[in-house]
Amino acid sequence: MSENQFIKPVTTEKKNNLTIGGCDLTELARMYGTPLYVIDETTLRGICKSYKKAFAEYSNIKMMYACKALCTSAIIRILDEEEFGFDTVSAGEIYTVYKSGVDMQKVLFNGNNKSAREIQLALDYGVGRFSVDNFHEAELLNDIASKKNINVKILLRITPGIECHTHEYIKTGQTDSKFGFDLSQIDEIISLIKTKYKNLNLRGLHAHIGSQIFDTQCYYDEVEILVKEIARIKNIHGIVLDEMNIGGGLGVKYTEEDNPPSVRVLSDAVTNAMNKYAIEIPTIYIEPGRSIISTAGVTLYTVGSTKQVPNGRKYAAIDGGMADNPRPGMYQAKYSAEVVNKINSKEKELVTLAGRFCESGDILIENIELPQLEAGDIICVYNTGAYNYSMSSNYNRVEKPAMVLVNNSQSDIIVYRETLDNLIANDNIPDRLKRK
Amino acid sequence: MSENQFIKPVTTEKKNNLTIGGCDLTELARMYGTPLYVIDETTLRGICKSYKKAFAEYSNIKMMYACKALCTSAIIRILDEEEFGFDTVSAGEIYTVYKSGVDMQKVLFNGNNKSAREIQLALDYGVGRFSVDNFHEAELLNDIASKKNINVKILLRITPGIECHTHEYIKTGQTDSKFGFDLSQIDEIISLIKTKYKNLNLRGLHAHIGSQIFDTQCYYDEVEILVKEIARIKNIHGIVLDEMNIGGGLGVKYTEEDNPPSVRVLSDAVTNAMNKYAIEIPTIYIEPGRSIISTAGVTLYTVGSTKQVPNGRKYAAIDGGMADNPRPGMYQAKYSAEVVNKINSKEKELVTLAGRFCESGDILIENIELPQLEAGDIICVYNTGAYNYSMSSNYNRVEKPAMVLVNNSQSDIIVYRETLDNLIANDNIPDRLKRK
Repeated sequence: MSENQFIKPVTTEKKNNLTIGGCDLTELARMYGTPLYVIDETTLRGICKSYKKAFAEYSNIKMMYACKALCTSAIIRILDEEEFGFDTVSAGEIYTVYKSGVDMQKVLFNGNNKSAREIQLALDYGVGRFSVDNFHEAELLNDIASKKNINVKILLRITPGIECHTHEYIKTGQTDSKFGFDLSQIDEIISLIKTKYKNLNLRGLHAHIGSQIFDTQCYYDEVEILVKEIARIKNIHGIVLDEMNIGGGLGVKYTEEDNPPSVRVLSDAVTNAMNKYAIEIPTIYIEPGRSIISTAGVTLYTVGSTKQVPNGRKYAAIDGGMADNPRPGMYQAKYSAEVVNKINSKEKELVTLAGRFCESGDILIENIELPQLEAGDIICVYNTGAYNYSMSSNYNRVEKPAMVLVNNSQSDIIVYRETLDNLIANDNIPDRLKRK
Repeated sequence: MSENQFIKPVTTEKKNNLTIGGCDLTELARMYGTPLYVIDETTLRGICKSYKKAFAEYSNIKMMYACKALCTSAIIRILDEEEFGFDTVSAGEIYTVYKSGVDMQKVLFNGNNKSAREIQLALDYGVGRFSVDNFHEAELLNDIASKKNINVKILLRITPGIECHTHEYIKTGQTDSKFGFDLSQIDEIISLIKTKYKNLNLRGLHAHIGSQIFDTQCYYDEVEILVKEIARIKNIHGIVLDEMNIGGGLGVKYTEEDNPPSVRVLSDAVTNAMNKYAIEIPTIYIEPGRSIISTAGVTLYTVGSTKQVPNGRKYAAIDGGMADNPRPGMYQAKYSAEVVNKINSKEKELVTLAGRFCESGDILIENIELPQLEAGDIICVYNTGAYNYSMSSNYNRVEKPAMVLVNNSQSDIIVYRETLDNLIANDNIPDRLKRK
């Protein structure tokens, strides 16, 4: 079983209290305050290794961590040590990776609307590859590259036309998508590159079918489309593409009902397509994000008020919610949780975990069986490593939480908690509104 | 017609380009970059005045701006000049109001799960009133206040049990709500205050039925319930409550299909209930947020790539999206927009405005009629003053936009654009991960 198939970090233990990475979670809550993001280094590195193992028979595999899942300097450093490259989608991600001391050749710049400023910055920092999404970008990138007299390695992002069953917001492979070239547009862009865009060095194709995907057939279909297209391009244009980026999107297990495929499905899909079309592809890229970091992360909250609606449900309010985890509101996401300091309680009751934000939609988990809650209890919500901190806001003018890395009974802060002064740091009162 | 019934700021004019507050929006985009939040001071102050006018016959009305809609120092300063008080829901909002130089007696602290730290801070800063949400909070507040030897003015937040038609996430008045005391719990909490919580000074009741409300009957029902309850408490407990907070939640006009009620509905609801029950209430609070700031705000974006899906829809990608405006993703919110530099174009086509964020759900407006778009065009999205900046995130590690205030052909920056260094400011790499 690979680590993306667990709900909890692999080091999770029930002692007097719940522990992760050898650290008592009540102790972490006391030391760093709550809400607190906690990342288990053992789980994170274990998942990286399970990806490497799944592709062990390929010498030509390049793992690219999809930074959008969670992009902080320390996490980038760990992924770099695990020999991952980086799939980035903005100046901010490129800057974070650069500042973490990564060899920028290992970085790919992705996205449907890269600005001139971002392209400029990416070239200045020596980003290794661009996944060119559309005609406009190809022209813009070539212009900027030619002014700098640089030859840029590119992949073409294609829309494979696959309908994959996941949340509407996070499926990207269907024909009606804002991302990538339609298959019918590939010949035109290749002709433009051959004749006009002399500073673009076409190395391969890229597709990405979505996120939180459980349907393995999608991957088989996607890789086949990529491999067939690479063969077709060789026939028609005489261009041998030696790179294929199959994207990421592998699902993770948020609740017991979830049954995500193992990372092996990705390598099997590659093997299957390459055997079927008798093709050799020198370099294969994959871009896992959520499945790398999600299970390694949990969030700790403190319970405050509880409310029993007469003849209705029971609410327990925590000190975080939709600003540190917008996924329940945005994607109707489900989570699992335990009470850190009541791990051995037998008696449970049905409770709804409400957030602290001024909005009824701020419900973290509806109707979960937990020991009876009271003020001061510490809740551990599992599988919050991905798309929690990265999507977090300052809604209600609340400071973003801190993040700690745990390992071998040691905890280290990797993102400091925001302060009240951070919140007003960019505010400005124009002179004419200043007090006399 | 009151200003919450317009889609556009009242100073919007079509000259060569679109202008707001006398400022050419292409010029603002050039000066400050995009995405850019723009607030029209004339519209904002006009809406404040329409609230005052609607309640002109009441000498005992206190307008409390609901900070969660948009809380920055300059906006607070303007509302203060317009003689509004402030409804706050966090330490961060209280801190922002305090730093803006407001008389803290005009501040109310609201919310379903105020922490001990926040209560402490609110008392230290001299916040005028607390809306006590639940039993736990009453005890906690009394404890902290008694240690400080302070008498705290409080309202009780009640759940009036009204089902109001609005988005599930933002209706708050129904019985099954995380907010407030159920009506059946009022006698118990009042007894506790009389006998036990000697540092709580009960002044009145508070209710709030939700947000973006169009159904005027809800307000009539809500105020009647409050007035009846105040009369009942006088009868049963011999306590004369002299404050009534009826909350806010008035809808605004995002698209031509929307037809929000005028602010007069709130004053009419109050008059109706007070006449019906022959009751005098010395002080009435209202807490508008969205309806104060939404229409005053627009967001400017620059168009980048466009994509025509063969036999499908046309996408135009802008340089912002779900991180600066999560409302389409979170609430399926609809918006109106125009092309700033093509304001006189007659020919239009159907286009979908896609955001720049790496996710299919990042669609700002689906299928809108606009002049044919090309790279460099500036889009103005209307009615983004509320719940855009306040809910904004750094998703995809993108810097939060700047905000400018326009008035009399002058523009002043009121929130500086985040920098790349802001993004990594709180990152920390533990020693053991540092490079040798």
